[in-house]
Amino acid sequence: MSATTISVAAPADFHVHLRQGSFSELVTSHVRLGGFSLAYVMPNLQPPIVNTEEALLYKAQLQAIDPTIEYLMTLYLSPDLTPDEIRKAKQSGVKSYPRGVTTNSEGGIESYEVYYPIFEAMEEQDMVLNLHGEVPSDPTSNTCVLNAEATFLPHLVKLHKRFPKLRIVLEHATTRAAVECVKSLGSTVACTITAHHLDLVVDDWAGQSWNFCKPVAKFPDDRQALREVIKEGHPRFFFGSDSAPHPPDRKSVSSPKQACAAGVYTSPILLPLVATLLESFGALDKLEHFVSGFGRAFYGRPAADERVTLRKTLHKFVEDSWALGDATVVPFWAGKQIGWEIVSE
Amino acid sequence: MSATTISVAAPADFHVHLRQGSFSELVTSHVRLGGFSLAYVMPNLQPPIVNTEEALLYKAQLQAIDPTIEYLMTLYLSPDLTPDEIRKAKQSGVKSYPRGVTTNSEGGIESYEVYYPIFEAMEEQDMVLNLHGEVPSDPTSNTCVLNAEATFLPHLVKLHKRFPKLRIVLEHATTRAAVECVKSLGSTVACTITAHHLDLVVDDWAGQSWNFCKPVAKFPDDRQALREVIKEGHPRFFFGSDSAPHPPDRKSVSSPKQACAAGVYTSPILLPLVATLLESFGALDKLEHFVSGFGRAFYGRPAADERVTLRKTLHKFVEDSWALGDATVVPFWAGKQIGWEIVSE
Repeated sequence: MSATTISVAAPADFHVHLRQGSFSELVTSHVRLGGFSLAYVMPNLQPPIVNTEEALLYKAQLQAIDPTIEYLMTLYLSPDLTPDEIRKAKQSGVKSYPRGVTTNSEGGIESYEVYYPIFEAMEEQDMVLNLHGEVPSDPTSNTCVLNAEATFLPHLVKLHKRFPKLRIVLEHATTRAAVECVKSLGSTVACTITAHHLDLVVDDWAGQSWNFCKPVAKFPDDRQALREVIKEGHPRFFFGSDSAPHPPDRKSVSSPKQACAAGVYTSPILLPLVATLLESFGALDKLEHFVSGFGRAFYGRPAADERVTLRKTLHKFVEDSWALGDATVVPFWAGKQIGWEIVSE
Repeated sequence: MSATTISVAAPADFHVHLRQGSFSELVTSHVRLGGFSLAYVMPNLQPPIVNTEEALLYKAQLQAIDPTIEYLMTLYLSPDLTPDEIRKAKQSGVKSYPRGVTTNSEGGIESYEVYYPIFEAMEEQDMVLNLHGEVPSDPTSNTCVLNAEATFLPHLVKLHKRFPKLRIVLEHATTRAAVECVKSLGSTVACTITAHHLDLVVDDWAGQSWNFCKPVAKFPDDRQALREVIKEGHPRFFFGSDSAPHPPDRKSVSSPKQACAAGVYTSPILLPLVATLLESFGALDKLEHFVSGFGRAFYGRPAADERVTLRKTLHKFVEDSWALGDATVVPFWAGKQIGWEIVSE
């Protein structure tokens, strides 16, 4: 009845954090370890990647670490970005972070109107706008991490109406409201879904900082909406891991004074994890479209010839950590049984 | 304009966890350190307190640690509790925990109907029923820690209609829905509010396990409803700290495999903390009613002659921890500035 091996064409991760320095050395090679051959790389470094020169330098650093991956680079939307810079850019996209909502987003945007000249230039250049779709928390307007995404959606709708030809990706959707909103919009608007948001609900990060990420996982019904849209095979919903490595001491919480970094790290187990999750809700037949076909089609990237084969297993447990030099990282599902493994060539 | 000292009559904490063994030695004396002279003691020990004999034994242990506190004891609602036991009980109340929702609640209730004979006996004896008002999480019905309290409220309404003379306290309310529900019911239904739920919202425990408690803190508007009902001076809403000490290694989260205990520990800083919080939202004039008068009136406990005086301070910071023997506990607001201090006699 159920397959014991499955083969998918060149998986593409349309949202991944590859960091800098020794941490980058450790995690960049995990893209391929996790079965992926394309990485759409986030620009929220310190300082952020704000122009073509910086993006090309960063890309060269990543290629030096692992030359077998196709890196698609993005620019960080900020007042430093100009329409001229967009016109000369060879990057695939521009990423917008609302101010202060996630790692290194202190320089994020507060209002979109000021960026309309940028978006016009992006529309002309056919660049993609990637939105971190959350508004900052504000107790006076009852805004918190739970409704930050739903409260953002009117901004997405407004941007799409003003720039109907601009390709926009709502990143890492976590709510039924977001799924329904993206579905209701035109063919230029797509949405990425992470692996961990197909698994977690709020109970899983309540008291467990390692499962804390932004956007936070929401209600069971929200998770169900993410699962349903994948099962439905909707072509504008595709995979972006938002795999976000942090040093263990930034994820542990040893005192009430310690702040925890937002992020879940999935890169090294990514394709087996997504297969395990999709199988759990009866969507394994959608794996290839979800992790490769739909995203490549939206971004206009050709399907590579390369294929990755997964094998079902009853004997595989996720590693407790990975280390290289002075860098260590702990994965999502550490120590937990995982149902699929990559077949080595 | 604002007072620099304030005096309140014999503060009473109508919901506190005093634990067992060496931990109890440490935390029981913190009731008075925090300015309180009455402790309504929770029965969720291991094993739980299920009859009068056990309650009296536990009370004697607490009295041996600090004889200056008035301890009101409760019994743990379970199938082991009989109407006969209720009739001979000298305890003040019976505490109901839905199964599995908080510390040592694995033996909690699943349905109330089976306990109707108990509730009839309690009504005759004029004992108070204390409800942990949450239903267990269940993804299939979209129930999680965020809506567990709101989903419980129909049970409260049903119980009150069936037993209109039974005094019921909905413990540690966290939502506007709970406040409105209790307000809408008769004079036999009251509600406790903790200090930490007057301070926290969901963002504060997202990634910070030391602020994780059950029920979890909710939306800013829910916190606002708790503040408003205190400011209004509603006599059926009074203080119960739910101060819940845990060893530091049960609150820290050092790996993805570690589970964190639910609970926030406020006992040793309690009256200064409540004063600081009430002052922050303009309700300092309600302090005495909230921490003493309303609760004592509902439970029929006379106001003691004793008074506690607080003094405003710009120089007080909460201790990082308290220790005694092999027991250590870290308080809420550790290291943080607090606006009031108790004036020693």
